[in-house]
Amino acid sequence: MSLTVQELAGQLGARVEGGGEITIAGVRGIETAQAGDLTFLANVKYLPYLKTTQASAVILPPSGQRFRYDRSEIPSCIALLIHDNPYFAFLQALTLFHPPPSPPAPGIDPSARIGKNVTLAEGVYVGPSCVVEDDVALGESTTILANSFVGRGSKLGRQCMIGPLVTILYGSTLGDRVRIHPSTVIGSDGFGYAPEGGQHHKIPQVGGVTIGDDVEIGAGCTIDRATMGQTIIGRGTKIDNLVQIAHNVEIGEDCIIVSQVGISGSTKLGNRVTLAGQVGLIGHIELGDNVTVAAQSGVAKDIPANSFYFGSPAVDASRQKRILASVSSLPEHVKAIKRLERRIAELEARLAENK
Amino acid sequence: MSLTVQELAGQLGARVEGGGEITIAGVRGIETAQAGDLTFLANVKYLPYLKTTQASAVILPPSGQRFRYDRSEIPSCIALLIHDNPYFAFLQALTLFHPPPSPPAPGIDPSARIGKNVTLAEGVYVGPSCVVEDDVALGESTTILANSFVGRGSKLGRQCMIGPLVTILYGSTLGDRVRIHPSTVIGSDGFGYAPEGGQHHKIPQVGGVTIGDDVEIGAGCTIDRATMGQTIIGRGTKIDNLVQIAHNVEIGEDCIIVSQVGISGSTKLGNRVTLAGQVGLIGHIELGDNVTVAAQSGVAKDIPANSFYFGSPAVDASRQKRILASVSSLPEHVKAIKRLERRIAELEARLAENK
Amino acid sequence: MSLTVQELAGQLGARVEGGGEITIAGVRGIETAQAGDLTFLANVKYLPYLKTTQASAVILPPSGQRFRYDRSEIPSCIALLIHDNPYFAFLQALTLFHPPPSPPAPGIDPSARIGKNVTLAEGVYVGPSCVVEDDVALGESTTILANSFVGRGSKLGRQCMIGPLVTILYGSTLGDRVRIHPSTVIGSDGFGYAPEGGQHHKIPQVGGVTIGDDVEIGAGCTIDRATMGQTIIGRGTKIDNLVQIAHNVEIGEDCIIVSQVGISGSTKLGNRVTLAGQVGLIGHIELGDNVTVAAQSGVAKDIPANSFYFGSPAVDASRQKRILASVSSLPEHVKAIKRLERRIAELEARLAENK
Repeated sequence: MSLTVQELAGQLGARVEGGGEITIAGVRGIETAQAGDLTFLANVKYLPYLKTTQASAVILPPSGQRFRYDRSEIPSCIALLIHDNPYFAFLQALTLFHPPPSPPAPGIDPSARIGKNVTLAEGVYVGPSCVVEDDVALGESTTILANSFVGRGSKLGRQCMIGPLVTILYGSTLGDRVRIHPSTVIGSDGFGYAPEGGQHHKIPQVGGVTIGDDVEIGAGCTIDRATMGQTIIGRGTKIDNLVQIAHNVEIGEDCIIVSQVGISGSTKLGNRVTLAGQVGLIGHIELGDNVTVAAQSGVAKDIPANSFYFGSPAVDASRQKRILASVSSLPEHVKAIKRLERRIAELEARLAENK
Repeated sequence: MSLTVQELAGQLGARVEGGGEITIAGVRGIETAQAGDLTFLANVKYLPYLKTTQASAVILPPSGQRFRYDRSEIPSCIALLIHDNPYFAFLQALTLFHPPPSPPAPGIDPSARIGKNVTLAEGVYVGPSCVVEDDVALGESTTILANSFVGRGSKLGRQCMIGPLVTILYGSTLGDRVRIHPSTVIGSDGFGYAPEGGQHHKIPQVGGVTIGDDVEIGAGCTIDRATMGQTIIGRGTKIDNLVQIAHNVEIGEDCIIVSQVGISGSTKLGNRVTLAGQVGLIGHIELGDNVTVAAQSGVAKDIPANSFYFGSPAVDASRQKRILASVSSLPEHVKAIKRLERRIAELEARLAENK
Repeated sequence: MSLTVQELAGQLGARVEGGGEITIAGVRGIETAQAGDLTFLANVKYLPYLKTTQASAVILPPSGQRFRYDRSEIPSCIALLIHDNPYFAFLQALTLFHPPPSPPAPGIDPSARIGKNVTLAEGVYVGPSCVVEDDVALGESTTILANSFVGRGSKLGRQCMIGPLVTILYGSTLGDRVRIHPSTVIGSDGFGYAPEGGQHHKIPQVGGVTIGDDVEIGAGCTIDRATMGQTIIGRGTKIDNLVQIAHNVEIGEDCIIVSQVGISGSTKLGNRVTLAGQVGLIGHIELGDNVTVAAQSGVAKDIPANSFYFGSPAVDASRQKRILASVSSLPEHVKAIKRLERRIAELEARLAENK
């Protein structure tokens, strides 16, 4: 497949600055791009590569919008495609040149086990050795790849992409276009016990999990069902690999939850919350809309909307930066204290003499 | 299903204070309960809800046991069930109204693969596409759900509930009533290599895993086999999701291991140890009975019995609280040091003048 | 099986000091060894056990090489096998007495699903309910255990040991003798989205994963495919359980990555890097050859070769030790500051009087 820069620009909604007739046959990052490739530049850090890249075309923001550049300093053989959101335009180009692998042709593999009263909409695929239990409903064009399990009474929307080797336990509800990667478990029991007589007695976990439209959940995640009620993942939220979501957690819309995060029971996240890698949240707290928590932070209290927190325990990031700066020079501060002590002792001694 | 408060109280071993004739049809948390619901109150924090809850009945401890309350301040239309352990009584009520889903009817699915010399006690269920290798023994009423694997020579006790998609590797021993959730792996190789000639040479992992009665292991956990001997999880211990237990670890009875904890090789835990989320323990250390370690702590040394530790590195919690309080105000302490320095310099200058 | 000490020494390349005729029937750690057992001693910490061990033979380094000992202080009934690398010699003895379980006899289980144009070299085994998609190549004597998935176009070398319940997604490349433990996922999508119109748009993940010879990957790991290009794990690298490797990460040769580590996108590791448990690395950084990072550290910057870093944020370990020592006594330093303040106030008061 190949397109001229002019044709590409049309498809991406970009404006061409020179080189509209150049033929593009592939897309690559600015460091590895070769002749015939389209690349992009969204971050000022990569600006120096503009002079050395082998790419034939570059998607750029208008000069002055994110950073300044001068057309005359860019090799004239490189076509420019000007776009307000170069990363998004590049994503679209990447999809053009690498269309996603087509899902398997609809059908139920003969080795799949389909229970009673299962609703299979048009275009559904269920792969080898999958188990779909009684009373499940699979929406139009939903794909369940090999060796996956969908427990009784679960409802999946349209165009979901599940598996292989995914476990969705009974009574789970998934919206449309939900993607779940391998080894992930939806609807495992919440972790709840009542102590009595020196032992831990299991609290029945009789709630469910509700996942909104356009949610993506990575590989190796565990999303527990609610004790009562629902564990909720809001529309458009994206979850990376090996993330733990405990019982009765409620996550808003369009959140970003990075790998190895753990969210304890009954904690609530607003919309557009970002949790970086390995963050831990205790239970029964609330994070407002647009909160960002930096990697490895431990959050033990509510966080108001629009805040950036970090550290363990997490505090406001600008405060935490000052604390960490002080900590990193603490050995010198301790020395300073000792020096002061000596000077004071000397002053005291002198003053005693003076008397 | 519905019961009068009086009938319920009989089943839970509670004493009724008013409203014994009220009909209860469900159970819910105090914030979401509706008319006809039973709820409970175990924590003084939720006491204010007693005046606003829509519940028809509340399980409470005797006034003065955990906190004080006055019957006259609680709406008289709400029945009270007095119980020394309200949470445990509520668990029992929850089980009454939401009996656990009955396991599949006994039998071996025709797509399951059963090896030679396998002992299947009465009431065993083995689901679709499971593999049960040679010389395995499954105790009475044990259930292995779809797509699970039980390696050769493994012995499972009675009423175990395994899977779906669980892997139990060869030579593992499980007691009675063990529950293992999806994507968990029992008996993976310990992580051991001997360096020689600049490369890492795998140390054969020839030991096993022994799991006691009434242990529950969450989803996505990894429990490694011992290099030699056994990795041991004691009776009644409960393990949350995504927990890593390394080779030759020994965990006592009735422990609580919260999500994303990692325990390194050969470390030993006593009985009733609690490790909160994301705690890491180095290898070859011992934690005594009744130790609690707070979330995200990193433990690098033995911890004596009955201690509460936290931090990374973890120290006694009361000490750690003082340290963290000092750290959180460190920028101000650093300023104080600088102020002192100026005052001393001034004193020194004045004293020099005085001479 | 049993061997004389002399015979064993021959096989291990060790020199015998007394007791060459003793018969050895097993191997065990120095604390648990019984009569008839061979054990080893590589660490001076265990030296006292030499006087109390029940073992019949001990592998030891030459006296003075790692530590000093005196033959006359060791019970003369214990045979000594002198070897420069006792741990490696012990590994070899362990392999002699506990040969690894032989893989299943070659063959394709009738319930396995083999796609079109699949190359199966001699000695390949594919277990029950495995799926091997179109255009896959499996090298000589490679074993795929039950319920595993190998996506289209993937190439596995010789003598690989995969599964059970492993997922290898499309287009992955594995070298020879690669071992992958259960519930691990190779080639899941990288976590990348471009924001536009307030929502997160998925960036197609069209790259692959390349794994070198002799790599071992534990249970429950997730290794993401590259956005473009390859995620790379170098020859001889060993990865423990529940490790997250993000898209476009490049790991060198002979690295050790301990359990629950997370490595963010595009980060590069040199050769012989060791990351201890629960370490987190941000994206787009580089760690040089022979770097070691201590447990729970968070790395946010490049680390030069041959360094030992720890802490969150990680700094040079000798510096971090001084910082942590200062932090651990911080409450006392704060008190010292307050004492100094009082003494200065007193000096100031006295000086005011003196005037």
